[in-house]
Amino acid sequence: MGALYMGNKPIIKVDSKVCIVMEQMIRLLHDCGLPMEDVDFINCDGKTMNKLLLEANPRMTLFTGSSKVADKLAVDLKGRIKLEDAGFDWKILGPDVQEVDYVAWVCDQDAYACSGQKCSAQSILFMHENWSASSLLRQMNDLAARRKLHDLTIGPVLTIGLSPRKHILAKMVTVAVSGVDDIGKQCMGLQHEEMLEHMNKLLQISGSKLLFGGEALENHSIPPIYGAIKPTAVFVPLEEILKDNNYELVTREIFGPFQIITDYKNDQLPMVLDALERMHAHLSAAVVSNDSLFLQEVIGKSVNGTTYAGLRARTTGAPQNHWFGPAGDPRGAGIGTPEAIKLVWSCHREIIYDVGPLPQHWETPPSS
Amino acid sequence: MGALYMGNKPIIKVDSKVCIVMEQMIRLLHDCGLPMEDVDFINCDGKTMNKLLLEANPRMTLFTGSSKVADKLAVDLKGRIKLEDAGFDWKILGPDVQEVDYVAWVCDQDAYACSGQKCSAQSILFMHENWSASSLLRQMNDLAARRKLHDLTIGPVLTIGLSPRKHILAKMVTVAVSGVDDIGKQCMGLQHEEMLEHMNKLLQISGSKLLFGGEALENHSIPPIYGAIKPTAVFVPLEEILKDNNYELVTREIFGPFQIITDYKNDQLPMVLDALERMHAHLSAAVVSNDSLFLQEVIGKSVNGTTYAGLRARTTGAPQNHWFGPAGDPRGAGIGTPEAIKLVWSCHREIIYDVGPLPQHWETPPSS
Amino acid sequence: MGALYMGNKPIIKVDSKVCIVMEQMIRLLHDCGLPMEDVDFINCDGKTMNKLLLEANPRMTLFTGSSKVADKLAVDLKGRIKLEDAGFDWKILGPDVQEVDYVAWVCDQDAYACSGQKCSAQSILFMHENWSASSLLRQMNDLAARRKLHDLTIGPVLTIGLSPRKHILAKMVTVAVSGVDDIGKQCMGLQHEEMLEHMNKLLQISGSKLLFGGEALENHSIPPIYGAIKPTAVFVPLEEILKDNNYELVTREIFGPFQIITDYKNDQLPMVLDALERMHAHLSAAVVSNDSLFLQEVIGKSVNGTTYAGLRARTTGAPQNHWFGPAGDPRGAGIGTPEAIKLVWSCHREIIYDVGPLPQHWETPPSS
Amino acid sequence: MGALYMGNKPIIKVDSKVCIVMEQMIRLLHDCGLPMEDVDFINCDGKTMNKLLLEANPRMTLFTGSSKVADKLAVDLKGRIKLEDAGFDWKILGPDVQEVDYVAWVCDQDAYACSGQKCSAQSILFMHENWSASSLLRQMNDLAARRKLHDLTIGPVLTIGLSPRKHILAKMVTVAVSGVDDIGKQCMGLQHEEMLEHMNKLLQISGSKLLFGGEALENHSIPPIYGAIKPTAVFVPLEEILKDNNYELVTREIFGPFQIITDYKNDQLPMVLDALERMHAHLSAAVVSNDSLFLQEVIGKSVNGTTYAGLRARTTGAPQNHWFGPAGDPRGAGIGTPEAIKLVWSCHREIIYDVGPLPQHWETPPSS
Repeated sequence: MGALYMGNKPIIKVDSKVCIVMEQMIRLLHDCGLPMEDVDFINCDGKTMNKLLLEANPRMTLFTGSSKVADKLAVDLKGRIKLEDAGFDWKILGPDVQEVDYVAWVCDQDAYACSGQKCSAQSILFMHENWSASSLLRQMNDLAARRKLHDLTIGPVLTIGLSPRKHILAKMVTVAVSGVDDIGKQCMGLQHEEMLEHMNKLLQISGSKLLFGGEALENHSIPPIYGAIKPTAVFVPLEEILKDNNYELVTREIFGPFQIITDYKNDQLPMVLDALERMHAHLSAAVVSNDSLFLQEVIGKSVNGTTYAGLRARTTGAPQNHWFGPAGDPRGAGIGTPEAIKLVWSCHREIIYDVGPLPQHWETPPSS
Repeated sequence: MGALYMGNKPIIKVDSKVCIVMEQMIRLLHDCGLPMEDVDFINCDGKTMNKLLLEANPRMTLFTGSSKVADKLAVDLKGRIKLEDAGFDWKILGPDVQEVDYVAWVCDQDAYACSGQKCSAQSILFMHENWSASSLLRQMNDLAARRKLHDLTIGPVLTIGLSPRKHILAKMVTVAVSGVDDIGKQCMGLQHEEMLEHMNKLLQISGSKLLFGGEALENHSIPPIYGAIKPTAVFVPLEEILKDNNYELVTREIFGPFQIITDYKNDQLPMVLDALERMHAHLSAAVVSNDSLFLQEVIGKSVNGTTYAGLRARTTGAPQNHWFGPAGDPRGAGIGTPEAIKLVWSCHREIIYDVGPLPQHWETPPSS
Repeated sequence: MGALYMGNKPIIKVDSKVCIVMEQMIRLLHDCGLPMEDVDFINCDGKTMNKLLLEANPRMTLFTGSSKVADKLAVDLKGRIKLEDAGFDWKILGPDVQEVDYVAWVCDQDAYACSGQKCSAQSILFMHENWSASSLLRQMNDLAARRKLHDLTIGPVLTIGLSPRKHILAKMVTVAVSGVDDIGKQCMGLQHEEMLEHMNKLLQISGSKLLFGGEALENHSIPPIYGAIKPTAVFVPLEEILKDNNYELVTREIFGPFQIITDYKNDQLPMVLDALERMHAHLSAAVVSNDSLFLQEVIGKSVNGTTYAGLRARTTGAPQNHWFGPAGDPRGAGIGTPEAIKLVWSCHREIIYDVGPLPQHWETPPSS
Repeated sequence: MGALYMGNKPIIKVDSKVCIVMEQMIRLLHDCGLPMEDVDFINCDGKTMNKLLLEANPRMTLFTGSSKVADKLAVDLKGRIKLEDAGFDWKILGPDVQEVDYVAWVCDQDAYACSGQKCSAQSILFMHENWSASSLLRQMNDLAARRKLHDLTIGPVLTIGLSPRKHILAKMVTVAVSGVDDIGKQCMGLQHEEMLEHMNKLLQISGSKLLFGGEALENHSIPPIYGAIKPTAVFVPLEEILKDNNYELVTREIFGPFQIITDYKNDQLPMVLDALERMHAHLSAAVVSNDSLFLQEVIGKSVNGTTYAGLRARTTGAPQNHWFGPAGDPRGAGIGTPEAIKLVWSCHREIIYDVGPLPQHWETPPSS
């Protein structure tokens, strides 16, 4: 919609598993009066789309999807691209323990709502030791345990291969929209064997342990090509996370009901900040604290785009009437506000009017 | 400077022919109190710089230079780049002929000041037939003729090869500045034999003719590796410009005192607009007219970034207290205004504070 | 509504002849969920309202009505007031005659739509002599002549006395809204005898003449306390308008289907500008011309708040998605845009956060 | 200066005791190139100035001075005025006691720097009981005690009568500037007998006591018409402050080294907020706390214009690169930022361009 508002003629390509939704959306727009020629819509596989992009040479492409495909497209399109790629989103609980019930509930929702399949889902939780001493983990365990297949509070993971899925491109003028917001991490979606295998690798790290979950769902008819596991949390010690041979494994993005949990002591905050700095995608984040100096320290030393701060901070509030997007990358896109739409779908153009009149008695000056 | 204002740590690389200027600038900044570690400065050839860029993996690179190198860097850096590349800048004279003396003088300055070596220099002039009937061309000829080597109103062209010249990059945080503004087109700088050869090719087009210039400068000691020709204008008929086999030749950017001139009849404006649309770089432009409807038509159907409109319009006014940069490309950079600095050297980050308090009597809601 | 959006608790007072409309509006708002205590609504005469204002001492009052009452209230409320008062709105036709049909139609609508009872109605028309030579006046006459009572394209003038009518005030926090937009000039509404008497006084000015209208409507049952005259235009020579003993008479605001028309020669533009400068209310205006220099001259030397410029300029377009209000008075209010709402119903407050931390090793400095 | 930047022609009137400073400033501006006719400067008494204002009928007047004169001028000028009047500025210390040394020093500076003669000086201090239990008061006593006449850390109060002092007005276009910033409260300046008398009245309130100061300075040659007392603080119980017969006395603004101190218990915060609400001038304020919920509560329920928040909050930081001015009054002026200058010295004007062209085949529509 943003692309249209700004006067572009977009071509939309949506992942083939969900494109039916976009098609209905476009039919609705036509019914409401959108001229037929204002938007093009294509259904094809990634290879075909890639070919189309190269030949159409669109002025701009917005890509929502995995970092791997994003980098390929950035090269193919010589940088004429904006990205809202995946994120290994973190949450930090500060030293001030308050409203444990509430924070536990937000953690449960951030990590496991929609079975964790949101690009803003909580992937890792850093707890201050004061929270470790509270009832937080027990409560999170209880909340995870009440999730059931029959009321859809837990469900299958829509595993998808690494084909380009949600790129969209503009042909003549500029281009392209993100139709269905939260499939951004699906390339990371795994069959449940793979998820459990990933978990087992994590559990081999010294000091790590399974907090809860870690089992396949039972008594269901979900086809095996989708993942279907219980809400799962694995604890890994902070020192181990930072080790070079563990870091990449621990920060692997899992598009499902899965999170890492760790804790830190007062004097280990710099180690936490170092862990954040080393992540390469900087989408959403949360700093749960009402301690002004703590907030200032963490926010000032991190770069995530959409960062929630304060006792009620969450990672998955977006997009709710505010900018949503990564930061720290000139290719970063934003959605949800007029500023974001202008950044992605328009550009500054400067018209300088100088109609005169000439000064009275003007004479030709010397050359320069 | 913009990169510094925004808190980045830039690495600066300037073309080796002019880097001495930047070095002195940085020494001045140090003398005024800039901490030594805030800016890195490197002198090297393009190949070395390219290697550095690939290894340092800067968050952002600003490149000012030729489109060819720009595209290579966009690929190497996976799109983490902003460009202020070259432009084949056009000027259109509308149907309302007024103040011929003034317009002739502005044309002379736009095309030949600094020997035409500005990235905003006038490369092509589209005259409405009403101007053809005026004394404009005769006056432009007279003005060109008064340019002399001895008072530096004409001079050598600093020919430079196609090595990357003015990229600058940020190592840790983001990156890089354009120090010396007007060498952007120098990769196009040619020895005068090449310039005259280019001219001769143009003169083979049916209906084209030499309006003035077209000869080497004489009685000087400028080394032959620099171009040194008289201010030159070649007329090419509009119909010929648009032919596929001529278009690329005519719109080749010459970084020197050289321009194309053509004219159009009232009903040929769509052909002029078509010629503009086919150009691939959209830096500066001028629409010389006080006719509101004509201005609206041309501005509405073109996309150049910095566009001067009105009887006193020029192509080379920039950067004078306004945004200067190309438009229509998501990689486009801007210089000269706070908005431009923020676009290139910073990015939006959204911090959403939600400190509470919780609603009274809050209770844990069901999962979702 | 603006007052509410900004969080105020307004008291609304609307003229007693039309307050039934506002009452229904408020009932609708309540039905849509507006809390009953958010807006107070009062029906009373001006004297009672004045007493209420003095005793309630509201933080802010927005008054829409006659200049006379506005000045009284400004004194009573010690300046805590914003005004959107009446206007003797002018239109100037520039030297470039184009699209006479269109301009004539806009003039007819600006002066006579809603029987001229809009605070933005065209009160005086300054024609460049080039327009005098066109068919404009004849066409305006034809258009006025097609207005008939039976299709309500002409109608009665709702004459109202000089009681304060549409002030509204805030009791606790700030205050007050304009509900029914176009009764602002009604205090000027006159019985038709008075209007004809005003016309006759104008016709005694040397060189003035009746262009069309000037008669009472016939065959109707409109009570005599309302004015009911045909669309009327009186020509008065520019030189006469500027005379001290005529100026006030000519620029008297008539809230009905009545306008003054005059013309000016090229070299008389300064006299026109002088006439504009001497008007004391500066609401809306129109400069009908596509001549850039003419527009620049007139706009640069006048101060009306909402000024339409260009060949299609009108005086009564407002409020259509743009700011509408007078200029040149610190008490001036605006309506119709977020900026206007903020100006009138809110104010700037600066919160400067400085949470620390203190510099390390901070020590108490000496007193100063 | 703001008035000039916006293109006005101001007349400046400064209090006769300090106008010599403004005269030199204007001479400096002339020396730097300001045209002689751009600013008018007048030296006269208040009565003469009042007459001038009434006759000149300036478009806008900015008045900096006492509320009493402000209200008179608002009436005389029919509301065409902006005010930056005096303030009885408050500071609240929240429940979180930290950095007592620092906070004591800021309190000392806010109350007694420049002998308390700043329009932003701390007039009353509300301490949470946690601060009462700290060493704060003792430290404030020590800091006050180190102030000496010989190093000018304490000095005379420049008592001035109630004549209008710093109004400035615009003659032709709009108007007027505040030259010397901190004489705003001087009308409140008192001889030391009067100050001591005021103190004695306060000490008669039940439960009140002298914390420190309360004596005339000794061994000096300051003429008796100026006040000269030691830095003084009087404690008054919160319950007593709120009593109707004490409130006006306690909140009387003293333009000198004099402050009220009180304390409150956790559950008395609503009483403190009530005390703030009843003050009639809302200039600057400080909320010293890093407790997010406390800050939110106090800031959300008060309306002072320039409000410092956080542990390092002060009342007299202004004007330091931020907006400075009162809030909650439509006549309120601001200084120090581009937004403030535009609010006071300019106004919004809307020019709507509509140059056409007409739609093809346009035909005159029916009247309406």
